[in-house]
Amino acid sequence: MLERCAALACQSELAGGLTRVFLSREQAAANELVLGWMREAGMSAKLDAIGNVVGRYEGERPGRPALLLGSHLDTVRDAGKYDGMLGVVSAIECVADLAARGRRLSFAIEVIGFADEEGVRFSSTLLGSRAVAGTFKCEVLDSVDADGVSMRAAMRASGLDPERIAQAAHRREDVLAYAELHIEQGPVLEAEGLPVGVVTAINGATRFAIEVEGIAGHAGTVPMNLRRDALAAAAECVLAIEQRCAKVPELVGTVGKLETLPGAVNVIPGRVRFTIDIRSPRDPERLAAVTEVVAQMETIAKRRGVAIKVSKTHEGNVAKCAPWLQEQIGAAIAAEGIAVRKLPSGAGHDGMAMIDLCDIGMLFVRCKRGISHNPAEAITAEDAQTGVRVLLRFIENFRPQARV
Amino acid sequence: MLERCAALACQSELAGGLTRVFLSREQAAANELVLGWMREAGMSAKLDAIGNVVGRYEGERPGRPALLLGSHLDTVRDAGKYDGMLGVVSAIECVADLAARGRRLSFAIEVIGFADEEGVRFSSTLLGSRAVAGTFKCEVLDSVDADGVSMRAAMRASGLDPERIAQAAHRREDVLAYAELHIEQGPVLEAEGLPVGVVTAINGATRFAIEVEGIAGHAGTVPMNLRRDALAAAAECVLAIEQRCAKVPELVGTVGKLETLPGAVNVIPGRVRFTIDIRSPRDPERLAAVTEVVAQMETIAKRRGVAIKVSKTHEGNVAKCAPWLQEQIGAAIAAEGIAVRKLPSGAGHDGMAMIDLCDIGMLFVRCKRGISHNPAEAITAEDAQTGVRVLLRFIENFRPQARV
Repeated sequence: MLERCAALACQSELAGGLTRVFLSREQAAANELVLGWMREAGMSAKLDAIGNVVGRYEGERPGRPALLLGSHLDTVRDAGKYDGMLGVVSAIECVADLAARGRRLSFAIEVIGFADEEGVRFSSTLLGSRAVAGTFKCEVLDSVDADGVSMRAAMRASGLDPERIAQAAHRREDVLAYAELHIEQGPVLEAEGLPVGVVTAINGATRFAIEVEGIAGHAGTVPMNLRRDALAAAAECVLAIEQRCAKVPELVGTVGKLETLPGAVNVIPGRVRFTIDIRSPRDPERLAAVTEVVAQMETIAKRRGVAIKVSKTHEGNVAKCAPWLQEQIGAAIAAEGIAVRKLPSGAGHDGMAMIDLCDIGMLFVRCKRGISHNPAEAITAEDAQTGVRVLLRFIENFRPQARV
Repeated sequence: MLERCAALACQSELAGGLTRVFLSREQAAANELVLGWMREAGMSAKLDAIGNVVGRYEGERPGRPALLLGSHLDTVRDAGKYDGMLGVVSAIECVADLAARGRRLSFAIEVIGFADEEGVRFSSTLLGSRAVAGTFKCEVLDSVDADGVSMRAAMRASGLDPERIAQAAHRREDVLAYAELHIEQGPVLEAEGLPVGVVTAINGATRFAIEVEGIAGHAGTVPMNLRRDALAAAAECVLAIEQRCAKVPELVGTVGKLETLPGAVNVIPGRVRFTIDIRSPRDPERLAAVTEVVAQMETIAKRRGVAIKVSKTHEGNVAKCAPWLQEQIGAAIAAEGIAVRKLPSGAGHDGMAMIDLCDIGMLFVRCKRGISHNPAEAITAEDAQTGVRVLLRFIENFRPQARV
């Protein structure tokens, strides 16, 4: 599996690193590799209408509803080798094992390598999984990449017909569930010495762009009590966000970017811009934190006599992993003699789109130091093997359940 | 006076704004204006060996030691009209008044328009006053401007001989004191409703470049308790600096520039760089604050498990205004019926160089909202007149005192 991930990582527009975006030449090459592996594993395999690689392993009888497995084949810029790809190759590995034993199940399996999850090229994420879920929005076809090429034109250039995207959509009655194996992209499993974990939910997120306006001044001449220092106010906000989010388990709050204006050693900052990203596996907890943080920032600004402008730039609710899928994934982990750790996913995943089609479940595999979206992304072969064993056990013991 | 400041402001390399640097064509034009005004005011006037404009008004007998007055004629980029210039034109105004009345004093007066105080062109400040004080360092002649022109070449192009700079130096026995009128560049006088104030000292300053190194991570996936957030640590440092400096009157501490790396909405900052500028009119108080702030930052870093690198980039001690000059300037203010407010200068001035030659004194004039180094720099004609009246009274009542 690690060799396959490495082979996929060679399909890159970035020499000496990995960047592979939607509808690129590199993606076409990666698709060819994956189609080959799927066929080798006993699946029928093809590209769907949006460029997802889809392999199907029939059940005891052909045409049965399918358990969908997979992840995405596109990457961020200067990416790691496992984000997305591990979920595709591990699912193929499971099917290969079943096929090698001649084992057919009471349901079909479909392995999907989604063509776009990261949204790098057109700044619009989850394009592949939205197409499968039937929620792809046609106006996105008009968005253009950095070179001014529209998605519509890029699809045509790749031999895909944008008019036929709807054909990628699955019917609800043909689908039993969607399950994805993915690296954790965080440090929790490593910190607890566990190779795998069950995902409870893909966190909801709220993002803000904040602008604090104070009064710039000479760093030497304005006494402390006459200052309207935008940075000192922003620093209080940063700590208020940290403190508020640390109070609630699994709630996280981050100020990722902060800049001072005019930004000179001898000038009191008159203006500071910063971003906030707050996430939680429970929407009410996120929304409560958001409300409280905004109120706290306004209090800080008022007390300091600075102005604050709070602009919401993103809001997305939790995508919950279905309890019955959590239970079955947990059972597979326990059967491997591993403690069952349930944890939320702070990062976004294809499940956020697939949930509109069917119940979703996720299995996390430990990664080194929680590093992801980075060439230093790393996992051990042993953990990858453990992940596949758990996934296979989950598949073989899979008992579909009607959506509530 | 305000008209003269406006006329000087027209001598600018910046269309629609004011930028005038050392040895520029614009400075030569400004010098011509000032030389003319000096002669009109009854002074003999010439450029000295470094390009300072020097006007002399003899006392009752020619060749007497002189009270030096003045300020600088160069500006920062996109400057205001009064920083420096007001000190030169107000001193000329005083001499014009004496000359108009045919009044000669027991000492000579020299008005100097220093050619460089801001140090914009060669990143080396106080060039004009250092030459007069006899502390000009010849190695500075090798420094080059943004176009690669050395100061030596620029001087020659301006018709000045770099070999003769030492001739600009004054002998101690020829000088009684240096007194400068300058806009406050801070908000203290405005806040207290006073048109002028006596400067007690030009503050000492310590500057640092700080780098905090934490661990970058995914904003969604790293739990709060596992973070090594460089920005949260830096925010604590910002507030610690503010708090420590606010405890001591006239001590100021500023974080003027702060940047987050990598600086993305969804990435926990792994590295933050920021600057610190701490100033005080009393060196021991500044040094105590510096020591304590550095220790506090190290404690914060240790507690948070991040690394901190503290690099000192500048250290300069206080230049004290002589008590006897403070007293005489204060007496002149009181004689105008104005409360005598003593305050330190947070900004640097030519006195920092002149103090190596003689005792120094300074008179501040209120400016609008403390704004300086900015086109919005503003004073009222009334305050300028008050400043000149005080300065003239100081000159007419000047009683020299031997340096202790």
